[in-house]
Amino acid sequence: MGSPERIREVAKRVARFVKDGHQVVVVPSAMAGETNRLLKLAAELNADPSPRELDVIAATGEQVSIGLLSLALQNIGVKARSYTGFQVKILTDDAHTKARILSIDDANIRRDLADGNVVVVAGFQGMDAAGNITTLGRGGSDTTGVALAAALKADECQIYTDVDGVYTTDPRIEPAARRLATITFEEMLELASQGSKVLQIRSVEFAGKYKVKLRVLSSFTDTDSTDMGTLITFEEDENMEQAIISGIAFNRDEAKITVLGVPDKPGVAFSILGPIADANIEVDVIIQNVSHDGITDFSFTVHRAEFKRAMQLLEDKVKPAINARSISGDDRIAKVSLVGIGMRTHAGVASKMFGALAREGINIQMISTSEIKTSVVVDEKYMELAVRVLHREFELDKAPTEEKMKP
Amino acid sequence: MGSPERIREVAKRVARFVKDGHQVVVVPSAMAGETNRLLKLAAELNADPSPRELDVIAATGEQVSIGLLSLALQNIGVKARSYTGFQVKILTDDAHTKARILSIDDANIRRDLADGNVVVVAGFQGMDAAGNITTLGRGGSDTTGVALAAALKADECQIYTDVDGVYTTDPRIEPAARRLATITFEEMLELASQGSKVLQIRSVEFAGKYKVKLRVLSSFTDTDSTDMGTLITFEEDENMEQAIISGIAFNRDEAKITVLGVPDKPGVAFSILGPIADANIEVDVIIQNVSHDGITDFSFTVHRAEFKRAMQLLEDKVKPAINARSISGDDRIAKVSLVGIGMRTHAGVASKMFGALAREGINIQMISTSEIKTSVVVDEKYMELAVRVLHREFELDKAPTEEKMKP
Repeated sequence: MGSPERIREVAKRVARFVKDGHQVVVVPSAMAGETNRLLKLAAELNADPSPRELDVIAATGEQVSIGLLSLALQNIGVKARSYTGFQVKILTDDAHTKARILSIDDANIRRDLADGNVVVVAGFQGMDAAGNITTLGRGGSDTTGVALAAALKADECQIYTDVDGVYTTDPRIEPAARRLATITFEEMLELASQGSKVLQIRSVEFAGKYKVKLRVLSSFTDTDSTDMGTLITFEEDENMEQAIISGIAFNRDEAKITVLGVPDKPGVAFSILGPIADANIEVDVIIQNVSHDGITDFSFTVHRAEFKRAMQLLEDKVKPAINARSISGDDRIAKVSLVGIGMRTHAGVASKMFGALAREGINIQMISTSEIKTSVVVDEKYMELAVRVLHREFELDKAPTEEKMKP
Repeated sequence: MGSPERIREVAKRVARFVKDGHQVVVVPSAMAGETNRLLKLAAELNADPSPRELDVIAATGEQVSIGLLSLALQNIGVKARSYTGFQVKILTDDAHTKARILSIDDANIRRDLADGNVVVVAGFQGMDAAGNITTLGRGGSDTTGVALAAALKADECQIYTDVDGVYTTDPRIEPAARRLATITFEEMLELASQGSKVLQIRSVEFAGKYKVKLRVLSSFTDTDSTDMGTLITFEEDENMEQAIISGIAFNRDEAKITVLGVPDKPGVAFSILGPIADANIEVDVIIQNVSHDGITDFSFTVHRAEFKRAMQLLEDKVKPAINARSISGDDRIAKVSLVGIGMRTHAGVASKMFGALAREGINIQMISTSEIKTSVVVDEKYMELAVRVLHREFELDKAPTEEKMKP
């Protein structure tokens, strides 16, 4: 919610749902810029701030929003009551600034809903068992919304964002990118984690775990619009007619590392990745191909910011320990992934992908596949081209069936 | 607390107390302008806002302050922990926007103090028995401070304000006004309620009730200053050498109303003030003089904003009911009061006061007296002159004894 003007718009939208006979729980985020303003104040006073006190400060942004939204609702004749995370109460663990929700006491909310209220709950925040204020980390309001929907067994959890749904790929890179009317949870997860950053990934995981029907909508469309954004589903059979490929994800946050001349014997992968994990470096793609003469190469990707540290670690500790030939790496790479639940049952997706890239002269450096995803690592300068080539190749600009597009 | 700069100053001051071996609980107010900013946002969304939601919004100002002050303390090596009103917990009644403190659970605070922490508690806020967030009204941080001092049996409660103590009268009106080193609780109460608005009156009443030693200091003096402001005491014998008069209060917020030709019989005062009270109009001075021929005049003062309403009410309801002759009123008046505990035992204070005013040609319209106060109502145009005349007449610019002035 950006401004009083925006809060009034949200209130109008909620009022329409109430008029349609729905019981509504709303989880507003902080007003635009508010959380940053607060954290900047904190940083001015302490360069290494205590997470406990940061949470006390940051949680106020959403607290202001629930009060303001309740007032805006009451102003147009809608009964409303606000709750902080503390008041609900939303119990979390004690990991300040990135707490996880443990349980929700929905008694007050149910009572207020039964009394005809819209209930406005502060997102992003909770309390730990000792009564300390906690926050769930950036984007935590989405997680709060999904958790409440799960606790209340809501018909649907609508998440209003600055985009109007999930697209086949980023429209800034491929203008023909098309919005999906539905997408499965798994596909969404792959798309969200790989660059189509529509929703906080934890909220999507949460929705999957508790089978919450999630809908992504734009908070900027007209409040009277019947636009229904993208529905994220958890039942595959709903998507029988789904296209083979639902979208293309990409990211250039990674770097690739290869340990060359590794003896192909049990325990070697652990010898390489153990020290990496001990240093808290996260690894994404891991590839080890078949060996020749008992010697193989072992490759993986890490976040670009960890590249130098990982290289140093391998050079100093791993190389001598496993007697590898050498370590090579490249942080100028990008990963491009085809995502689609239909991929499981449709042969030839990968070869079609590789063929399209080859025709454009894009060299594939690494390949990894899962049931619903085929990823390639390419030189980062080819990333945009690869996205566009694959979008065209798989005809993602065209809806799979016309019926599917109308919600 | 005005800004990050000011918060750092407060932290330094607190650190000095800690270094001197004190256990310290700090109650910061919201940052300057913050509460107004929040209430303006609320007013933009709802012209008649729900008090419950106003409290949710307004309470965030102090919550931000406790987090920031804790961070500033930690930044200079002082262990600190913050608490919201909710967390302490400070239980209040459910009178939103003007709640009263019912009890304080000081267990967490005592434990943290014992652990060597400075405890930073959000002022102005609490929760009611149902778990709703409440606020104590403007200036409520003072009340929180005093209530905590009472609960913790603190040696002293220091209140930092934008003035550096309690003066004999407002220095803007009488430049010779002198700061008092000590003042009794009762005198303070009279001075605070009548215009020398140094502290919120409820905090002073609270201090009186629980015998909390209260000190008013300036938050703008150097943090290393040894200036001790004004100490408010509750034991009269400490003040044996106190001057007869400690100060002069004044206000021009009132209007006077007289019911003329009232039959002097039992129940008449109630017939007049009953309807006024029923209409929630507060009455200050009440005067009824002896009657002549069974007929008397009955006068009282009300807040100036209530003047017209009170006049109308008397004209419509009271005058016919009690068969009074007429109603007259004047909202261009001011009340000037001499305040001093010494007045009880020193005869001649009132006559000296009336003589001084007469010499300047100031007509006295009404007089009322209490044990420690003599008030006169005069034409408002004479208010400043009356204050200056009386300040000179009672030599308030001179300290009663030199020793008294040095804390």
